[in-house]
Amino acid sequence: MSEEQDHLEDQDHLIDAGLLSPVRAGAPVEAVVSDAAWLRAMIEAEVALVRAQARLGTVPQWAARTIAEVSREDRVDLRTVARAARENANPVVALVREFTRAVAARDPRAAGYVHRGSTSQDIFDTGAMLVARRAVSMMSTDLRSAAGSLGALARRHHHTPMAGRTLALQAVPITFGLKVAGWRRLVLDADQRMGRLLAGGLPVSLGGAAGTLAGYLAYATVDAAPGADGGREDYADRLERAFALETGLARQTLPWHALRTPIADLGAVLGFTAGALGKIAVDVLTLSRTEIGEVAEPGPPGRGASSAMPHKRNPVLAAMIRGVSLHVPVLAAGLTQSLTADDERSGGTWQAEWAMLRECLRLTGGATHTLSELAAGLEAKPERMAANLRLTSSGMASERLVAVLTPRLGRATAQELLTTCTREAALTGRPLSAVLSAGLAALPSPGGAMPPAEVEALCAPDAYLGAASLLVDRALSDEAGPAGESDR
Amino acid sequence: MSEEQDHLEDQDHLIDAGLLSPVRAGAPVEAVVSDAAWLRAMIEAEVALVRAQARLGTVPQWAARTIAEVSREDRVDLRTVARAARENANPVVALVREFTRAVAARDPRAAGYVHRGSTSQDIFDTGAMLVARRAVSMMSTDLRSAAGSLGALARRHHHTPMAGRTLALQAVPITFGLKVAGWRRLVLDADQRMGRLLAGGLPVSLGGAAGTLAGYLAYATVDAAPGADGGREDYADRLERAFALETGLARQTLPWHALRTPIADLGAVLGFTAGALGKIAVDVLTLSRTEIGEVAEPGPPGRGASSAMPHKRNPVLAAMIRGVSLHVPVLAAGLTQSLTADDERSGGTWQAEWAMLRECLRLTGGATHTLSELAAGLEAKPERMAANLRLTSSGMASERLVAVLTPRLGRATAQELLTTCTREAALTGRPLSAVLSAGLAALPSPGGAMPPAEVEALCAPDAYLGAASLLVDRALSDEAGPAGESDR
Amino acid sequence: MSEEQDHLEDQDHLIDAGLLSPVRAGAPVEAVVSDAAWLRAMIEAEVALVRAQARLGTVPQWAARTIAEVSREDRVDLRTVARAARENANPVVALVREFTRAVAARDPRAAGYVHRGSTSQDIFDTGAMLVARRAVSMMSTDLRSAAGSLGALARRHHHTPMAGRTLALQAVPITFGLKVAGWRRLVLDADQRMGRLLAGGLPVSLGGAAGTLAGYLAYATVDAAPGADGGREDYADRLERAFALETGLARQTLPWHALRTPIADLGAVLGFTAGALGKIAVDVLTLSRTEIGEVAEPGPPGRGASSAMPHKRNPVLAAMIRGVSLHVPVLAAGLTQSLTADDERSGGTWQAEWAMLRECLRLTGGATHTLSELAAGLEAKPERMAANLRLTSSGMASERLVAVLTPRLGRATAQELLTTCTREAALTGRPLSAVLSAGLAALPSPGGAMPPAEVEALCAPDAYLGAASLLVDRALSDEAGPAGESDR
Amino acid sequence: MSEEQDHLEDQDHLIDAGLLSPVRAGAPVEAVVSDAAWLRAMIEAEVALVRAQARLGTVPQWAARTIAEVSREDRVDLRTVARAARENANPVVALVREFTRAVAARDPRAAGYVHRGSTSQDIFDTGAMLVARRAVSMMSTDLRSAAGSLGALARRHHHTPMAGRTLALQAVPITFGLKVAGWRRLVLDADQRMGRLLAGGLPVSLGGAAGTLAGYLAYATVDAAPGADGGREDYADRLERAFALETGLARQTLPWHALRTPIADLGAVLGFTAGALGKIAVDVLTLSRTEIGEVAEPGPPGRGASSAMPHKRNPVLAAMIRGVSLHVPVLAAGLTQSLTADDERSGGTWQAEWAMLRECLRLTGGATHTLSELAAGLEAKPERMAANLRLTSSGMASERLVAVLTPRLGRATAQELLTTCTREAALTGRPLSAVLSAGLAALPSPGGAMPPAEVEALCAPDAYLGAASLLVDRALSDEAGPAGESDR
Repeated sequence: MSEEQDHLEDQDHLIDAGLLSPVRAGAPVEAVVSDAAWLRAMIEAEVALVRAQARLGTVPQWAARTIAEVSREDRVDLRTVARAARENANPVVALVREFTRAVAARDPRAAGYVHRGSTSQDIFDTGAMLVARRAVSMMSTDLRSAAGSLGALARRHHHTPMAGRTLALQAVPITFGLKVAGWRRLVLDADQRMGRLLAGGLPVSLGGAAGTLAGYLAYATVDAAPGADGGREDYADRLERAFALETGLARQTLPWHALRTPIADLGAVLGFTAGALGKIAVDVLTLSRTEIGEVAEPGPPGRGASSAMPHKRNPVLAAMIRGVSLHVPVLAAGLTQSLTADDERSGGTWQAEWAMLRECLRLTGGATHTLSELAAGLEAKPERMAANLRLTSSGMASERLVAVLTPRLGRATAQELLTTCTREAALTGRPLSAVLSAGLAALPSPGGAMPPAEVEALCAPDAYLGAASLLVDRALSDEAGPAGESDR
Repeated sequence: MSEEQDHLEDQDHLIDAGLLSPVRAGAPVEAVVSDAAWLRAMIEAEVALVRAQARLGTVPQWAARTIAEVSREDRVDLRTVARAARENANPVVALVREFTRAVAARDPRAAGYVHRGSTSQDIFDTGAMLVARRAVSMMSTDLRSAAGSLGALARRHHHTPMAGRTLALQAVPITFGLKVAGWRRLVLDADQRMGRLLAGGLPVSLGGAAGTLAGYLAYATVDAAPGADGGREDYADRLERAFALETGLARQTLPWHALRTPIADLGAVLGFTAGALGKIAVDVLTLSRTEIGEVAEPGPPGRGASSAMPHKRNPVLAAMIRGVSLHVPVLAAGLTQSLTADDERSGGTWQAEWAMLRECLRLTGGATHTLSELAAGLEAKPERMAANLRLTSSGMASERLVAVLTPRLGRATAQELLTTCTREAALTGRPLSAVLSAGLAALPSPGGAMPPAEVEALCAPDAYLGAASLLVDRALSDEAGPAGESDR
Repeated sequence: MSEEQDHLEDQDHLIDAGLLSPVRAGAPVEAVVSDAAWLRAMIEAEVALVRAQARLGTVPQWAARTIAEVSREDRVDLRTVARAARENANPVVALVREFTRAVAARDPRAAGYVHRGSTSQDIFDTGAMLVARRAVSMMSTDLRSAAGSLGALARRHHHTPMAGRTLALQAVPITFGLKVAGWRRLVLDADQRMGRLLAGGLPVSLGGAAGTLAGYLAYATVDAAPGADGGREDYADRLERAFALETGLARQTLPWHALRTPIADLGAVLGFTAGALGKIAVDVLTLSRTEIGEVAEPGPPGRGASSAMPHKRNPVLAAMIRGVSLHVPVLAAGLTQSLTADDERSGGTWQAEWAMLRECLRLTGGATHTLSELAAGLEAKPERMAANLRLTSSGMASERLVAVLTPRLGRATAQELLTTCTREAALTGRPLSAVLSAGLAALPSPGGAMPPAEVEALCAPDAYLGAASLLVDRALSDEAGPAGESDR
Repeated sequence: MSEEQDHLEDQDHLIDAGLLSPVRAGAPVEAVVSDAAWLRAMIEAEVALVRAQARLGTVPQWAARTIAEVSREDRVDLRTVARAARENANPVVALVREFTRAVAARDPRAAGYVHRGSTSQDIFDTGAMLVARRAVSMMSTDLRSAAGSLGALARRHHHTPMAGRTLALQAVPITFGLKVAGWRRLVLDADQRMGRLLAGGLPVSLGGAAGTLAGYLAYATVDAAPGADGGREDYADRLERAFALETGLARQTLPWHALRTPIADLGAVLGFTAGALGKIAVDVLTLSRTEIGEVAEPGPPGRGASSAMPHKRNPVLAAMIRGVSLHVPVLAAGLTQSLTADDERSGGTWQAEWAMLRECLRLTGGATHTLSELAAGLEAKPERMAANLRLTSSGMASERLVAVLTPRLGRATAQELLTTCTREAALTGRPLSAVLSAGLAALPSPGGAMPPAEVEALCAPDAYLGAASLLVDRALSDEAGPAGESDR
């Protein structure tokens, strides 16, 4: 066996191929949140920092250039850094050592400018924000694609009646268009929250050892090129600005080593998205049930096939998304709790964040990717919707019948009559319209008289759709949304 | 024993005096989220609904007036409604029955207009939003009061040096002003998120049996006064608008019986607030430690006294707030999961929300109330801060010394020298400045030579405060905040 | 308005009638976990302590008797204690003050023996264990009652075939007896875990100010009757034993002020129970669906009635139980986290436990109560089960057909044939047996020949029940359970 | 670039080196819970199944042998399986396909016996239990090693006095031995819960498509060797027994595809362990504080070094363990919720379990590994403990002084006197004994007279240790534990 192979086998247990998370196995998000990507993002943060310092004249331009060049060569070994992270309860100390060594191999004079005045958490947190920005942007793209598909589906089924179901039972009719418009609304709510994050909620982290930026100022004082004014306190402002510029991230309001608003906000938005997508998933699972059969997942060959039962085509995309909707919110609770950070930098709450955040990003990113496939190919079955609507023998129209009969009979009598007739219809299998016509005729009060054709029309469930159409129109038209929508 | 007394004893186990939640026992928030308040809010929702219908001419004005009058008389018995709620898995059915009965006792003709066309969830959810709005407004007031106190405290200690601590150890100096400015930032972050909710995130709920508003339209058709156009589909829009007007709540984007964005948003904001306040609490607990002693909680007589140990004055406000910071985020996870609601109305996820939401409101409201007291009276002890800063024998200045010596000796030599000298100083108890002066003199390289007075100045920890002052200024000046702050 | 009334209105907001938790509104568990019950349990702990001290001769018997007598008179005002709890971040300091005052009113000499040598947490935690024991015992009774009902139901439907469903779709047949036997198994698993708690997992708490029992020993030394040996260190052992005897609780392994095993164990068992009952609830909700209709909840008049839709009878018990299954596990996470207690007694994690623990007890107790009602009256509908089994046109038997045909045709051919025939049957509506007979006849291989009657028999879903009957027998016979069952 | 290299770079993002989880980076647990290990465990399950079938004569022995041989050759590509898992929402379908292909390449006749009669979940869940058993066994070994180290440490410091701290403040003295004995108790509590799992809580999973084992029976009927009785229903019992024997796992009480007791139990035990270890971690962090300095983590060269601050040696092991204590309990909540599984096999709750379970195993395993290192090398500093005890100017003895003075002065006077004297001592810096002697002398009552030497002795904090020594003895002696310990 060659050494190369030996090394590979040795690394066998380091492979995370998504075996236990099919929802994201092979999804694009994996590549942007992997250990390797996180390492690269932290190196990007180091490069952005030295460039920012060079912009302000407190590091020589040639040094920044050399450091940036070396950064492009991937000379830092992930596994070495990860293993050494145990020694410091964070991976940045080893990363800096390895990266500095690589720079020194190119130009020893440049090496001293790596991580100048900095602290581990500045690099880790800035790297995390770079990773989060990429992952959230991807998700936002997925969500918009899904919203597009769902919008088209809702339009297609604007007027397709189906049973509305509450507490598991059929209640009154709705349209499939309205249901899908609701799904789309949740998708847009999630995307809007992501947009808010991308528009300023992901800042650089720049604090130095305990949030005063003292290290940066100390080196700036000794390093400053003539006229660079490195020692003045407002150098902090200028460095922050330059660092934000180099990374493309937002500025921070204060150093946030122990003020974890950006992390908690990420947790909240990812938890929201996972929960919201879960709603679509449980609806698809329910509507896919053999006995309901009103939708089917898109079915490329092999998809959803059962090993033992060739007659099944399982709603696998929905199942995977639903799994995420149970998992991410509990992790988000952990991220919220990490707001309760000790001191100027916490020993423990910070460490707890990392794997939780990556898993939230990865699973939610897998779910948005999966949703966009589901939404694009979901098959609706209007004929099954219609058949199911007829199951309760027009019981679905009883609310309306009460409304119509109330002015004639009084509410109590109307309700009582409907209850009796609905039960009789269910028991005997006779159509509700016939039972009700008979019931009305038998009433002592003359006010209830109604021609059988009118009774039959009132019993037709698909004519009792309320404002469904208006709501679909409103939901699909961004312009026509009520005030406040833009901020929700 | 009188019957009255008997009844009271019988109700004994219904009293929740906050025995297990001292953080909110007697706090104003209790009164706005109690069962009684919730019941009243649901009745308000009924009244607002009938008034909205009367505005549109689909219910007679006199009926709406009668209903409103009866609502002010508290004729619905809470306990009766609560017990009966088991029969329907929600309290609204019994509430409507009892309230209708009360209206009927006044005017039987008006009774038929109670809950006309409506469904339980419309009333429950609208009531919940009314309750949430009151509770959140209270919290926002508390937070602003706390921010005010913290701002004054930060200003007062703008230049008070203290040890910055990371991973539990002293690291480099900071100022107490900077620490407090950070606390204030979190308080403002929480308040900003509450403001966003209050500005449009708390909508009315109006959907009818399955989200189509069909019941409202059906009754509007039969009830409409001449020219009132009750049957046209846009009646739904008009009713929503009128209902929002009557309640003061926001409009909904869509009926949200199963699109739980407002609930998840509330959970996220309350979880955030609890977590953020927890940060302040753990800092106060740490700084109160006997061995640190840099702050003390406000101490009215009796506060924090230990039953067994008269010498103690416990940081009880911080302890209570910290308890909330552990509790609310896990509940918020449950609220996020409730996004995954089934069908048009869920049997189970909706039921799970209620007690979680109330507890989140009540505990977080207790915590904000408690924080405003803590912030107003927190006592800082600059002399202890100064004493603690001297504990590490100037080790706190080592970062700066490395910075200053690096250009003279090279970074590696500088770091090595400092490590050696710091250890020796710690071991022998000699001042670092003396040890270091000797160390520098002993170096073969002449670059390290430095007059002892300069060494001593560099070793003074309270002169190594970086940009602390600038950061405090920036944090306390809303105008000077960096771009993006307004949106964070 | 009388003063009495005034006082009552004033207390209005202190009533928790269960409006937001119908699952426990009026359930017996409410009375044993209420504030009043908790207060009484803490007073019981005080009485048990002084009695234990009197047993050992370190408190006079007459003093213990007086204290016990006063304790039976309910002279401590709950609201006063609860309000004052804010001053100490726990209610015991005020409780001791009020109770001592009441004792002093009877006999000033006895008053000095109240809470002698004790600390708040000893009393609070011992009281909490007394409350928990009562609540858990109640739940255990409920669970055994539910297991009895489910056992009878399973026996009754031992041979009732129904569709087994996986990933929402019909898969292969099972029996309703097997499904119910599985529910019963979960109920017994929960009860077994409760039994383990009741058999030793709920200990007294006795540590004194910081877990050394020093206060008890100090007083014992000065108080000891001649020959009572109060000062010897093994007095601690003897006091613990006597305290356990007086309370009926288990002994502690060590003072557990900051070793929260009993609390975490309670959280785990209550979380388990809630989750397990949730499984039964989601199954009942699914099987109640209009389109499935295989079970119905017990229906006393009024139960599950919809206000707007007289034709519905909602599965309300299942909905309420399911709510609990979402809520309690997140609280249990909080209780598990409270293991991470600081120092000898924590400022914050302890405070967080109380309301979480009570809510876990109350909701889970409500759920077991509700389950026992649900299990006793659940209605099964074998004819709907049979009808649903026929829906997939015998597709449910395809697994078996593959098995039978594999030795004749090879697995690949068998599977391919079945896939084709199942699809054709679904598409054309022809019975699978007919399609398959034709398919077999058309095969080139003679091995597939099979008389149509045999094909038809193989296609009958209700003859393909595997070991269902044996499993039901095994599950219902405690003796026949496999090794290890007794410990699971 | 070679193809090999190309492939490697391509797999870059699949490496999980633990960069974000230093607590387990390189820990032995990683190898037993990796994707590769999980895949192998599932193949082991397949092999155990076919061997069990061969034992019972329903599969030819030669086929079982061939299948077992191929399994040892690692011919199934992880990445292929993981990617394909998306098509079925589980990885087993693709695993079976790939593994069958590998067997067929060796002997096509044997291939038909792979996964005979089986279903994905049987293989996945059995594989998961194999993985869990290995990981939990490892943790148990770590815990016992840690308990050993802690026992030795407690013995060494049996009589070392230190400050007991409650609500962050010094309260009364304890011994370091008692504190460590408490840590050890939690470690043993965790290990005991793991032992319970290993002794029967990790069963095989054997249910076939919907929990009736019908597929196994169907194939057994057609496959049975003469006399093998494959078709009798009790074949299910025999197959289960044989499968348990082959895997070394426990038997199941019932097929548990949707009865998730084993998973919830694993979650509870891992959550407990993480929380319990967190207690040790927060104590170590607190005692390591610069101002307290009573313990230090073991320090091999480089460990805990700060990049910027050479004077710091951070408590990194404790920080990493504490991170786990925040993370695992929220995941355990998710695992508890997965009890609420739908139908015979759930679409969603099952999928949610996998990554949560692996992360719980991996992090907790990292934490036990880290704890065993921490416990083995923790350094205690008795001189700092003694110095800190003196900080409150003997205030720590006030509880005892009240006890001693109560019989002489009455409790109220005693308490008042102590409060006054303690404050005066704190204010003036004079020793409490002097202040108190003066105070006693000034009392009008003659009962308080006490020679100054006696007062001084009573003020010595290290003589007020209560039953600490007895408790340590008891805790370290398994035999002397109170009843019930064995079951806690």
